[in-house]
Amino acid sequence: MSKIKHLSSLQNSLIKKVLLLKDKSRERKKAALFVLEGQRELELALKGGYTISTIFFEPSLFSETSLEKYNSAKEIISVSKEVYQKIAYRGTTEGIVALVESKNNTLENLKFKNNTPLILIAEAPEKPGNIGALLRTADAANLDAVLIANPKTDLYNPNIIRSSVGCVFTVPVAMGNTNEIISFLNAKNVNIYCAALTASVNYTSIDYTNATAIVVGTEATGLTDTWLNASKKNIIIPMEGEIDSMNVSVSASIILFEAKRQRQTS
Amino acid sequence: MSKIKHLSSLQNSLIKKVLLLKDKSRERKKAALFVLEGQRELELALKGGYTISTIFFEPSLFSETSLEKYNSAKEIISVSKEVYQKIAYRGTTEGIVALVESKNNTLENLKFKNNTPLILIAEAPEKPGNIGALLRTADAANLDAVLIANPKTDLYNPNIIRSSVGCVFTVPVAMGNTNEIISFLNAKNVNIYCAALTASVNYTSIDYTNATAIVVGTEATGLTDTWLNASKKNIIIPMEGEIDSMNVSVSASIILFEAKRQRQTS
Repeated sequence: MSKIKHLSSLQNSLIKKVLLLKDKSRERKKAALFVLEGQRELELALKGGYTISTIFFEPSLFSETSLEKYNSAKEIISVSKEVYQKIAYRGTTEGIVALVESKNNTLENLKFKNNTPLILIAEAPEKPGNIGALLRTADAANLDAVLIANPKTDLYNPNIIRSSVGCVFTVPVAMGNTNEIISFLNAKNVNIYCAALTASVNYTSIDYTNATAIVVGTEATGLTDTWLNASKKNIIIPMEGEIDSMNVSVSASIILFEAKRQRQTS
Repeated sequence: MSKIKHLSSLQNSLIKKVLLLKDKSRERKKAALFVLEGQRELELALKGGYTISTIFFEPSLFSETSLEKYNSAKEIISVSKEVYQKIAYRGTTEGIVALVESKNNTLENLKFKNNTPLILIAEAPEKPGNIGALLRTADAANLDAVLIANPKTDLYNPNIIRSSVGCVFTVPVAMGNTNEIISFLNAKNVNIYCAALTASVNYTSIDYTNATAIVVGTEATGLTDTWLNASKKNIIIPMEGEIDSMNVSVSASIILFEAKRQRQTS
């Protein structure tokens, strides 16, 4: 394990950098680093092949003897309670925060395990909580990829990490603009099905056993025409009550698990 | 329409009552009244057969000529901007807040439209946001009822109303303790299926075309043994990734829409 340094000044430049990386998407992109908090999330990041750059721990909350699993980190720093409270999101809970190297989430880097991948695509999702919930479903369904079209934020937004309960690290994710993603899917002969409130085809009538991408838009505005026109079929979950839409992570999950059901019995 | 009164004092006893009813479950139960905000929610409450007691509107935000649809209200009161900002949850948005009479959500008052009802049961849900999301799915699926076992809050908690986007008014809801609800279901020959992470039966292997109740617990602790033992089968959505559970509204929706799928094709 690296030699442990100590740090107790809030004015230290590294601490200032952590605070900037937590707040600013632009800083995260520039440094190719992001801030990660919590043991469970760190373990999922390691499982997902991420490289830990720096570990910060607060010795009264996190025992030095538990650091062993993080000995791949380039640097390990013990911090004062005051510094920890400043850099931690959740106050005084687990006592461990890390700087982790971002991955390059491009379409070119995406490899599928099989010829009939099942993919979820979210166009321009606005709420980090919705992206997190989609990633959580994607992990449970063992999807081949989640693609984010025209993203409004980087993937390592602290609210995405938190609401995904770390699934942002376990699911293959790529970002790109809508046209790039459509070309990518067409080149790989993936069937595109867009979930749209204006659609008339019941989602249960589709055969999802071939290579399939399910596309969902924002709750407010739905999908752009570019997606709706690139779609093999536009599909709908029939709404039988008084409201006209469901939460995007709920509707995506219903369609994806119908695809899973067909694949398990086919 | 009732004669419109005017009210501009924050010290008025009715305004103080509104603030108490917003905050305290106990006060809502005692008065059998709750506070409702927003036009869409009010319209859903009227559709759901609720009785509006008092309408408060802020004339610069809500036009007096639009009050017509609320002329069943017992009392209509124009309030000052200051009073409105105090009683409204969402600040200055729609300009309309109401006191509405609670319904008596008991099992005895529940009537089913058909002999093979599809019912969702949530045991002791803690987060109002989860209850709201479950009610939203229940509306979309046109469920026969949502039953809340051992509730931690009353149904008219402002966060439940808001997160359900008004579906709390459109879905038949009843509350009771676990034993009462199990007796109720047994008396009506409803098959009980509990979603449990410890279960081994895949949820897709069940026939949901008969009278069916799907039971979900809290994300943290799951269901009590009382439910697991009363269950015809305990079912699971296979988790194929790194995490071991999904959001409760997502898993409930996946199972309920599988039941809907079976019923549409059977």
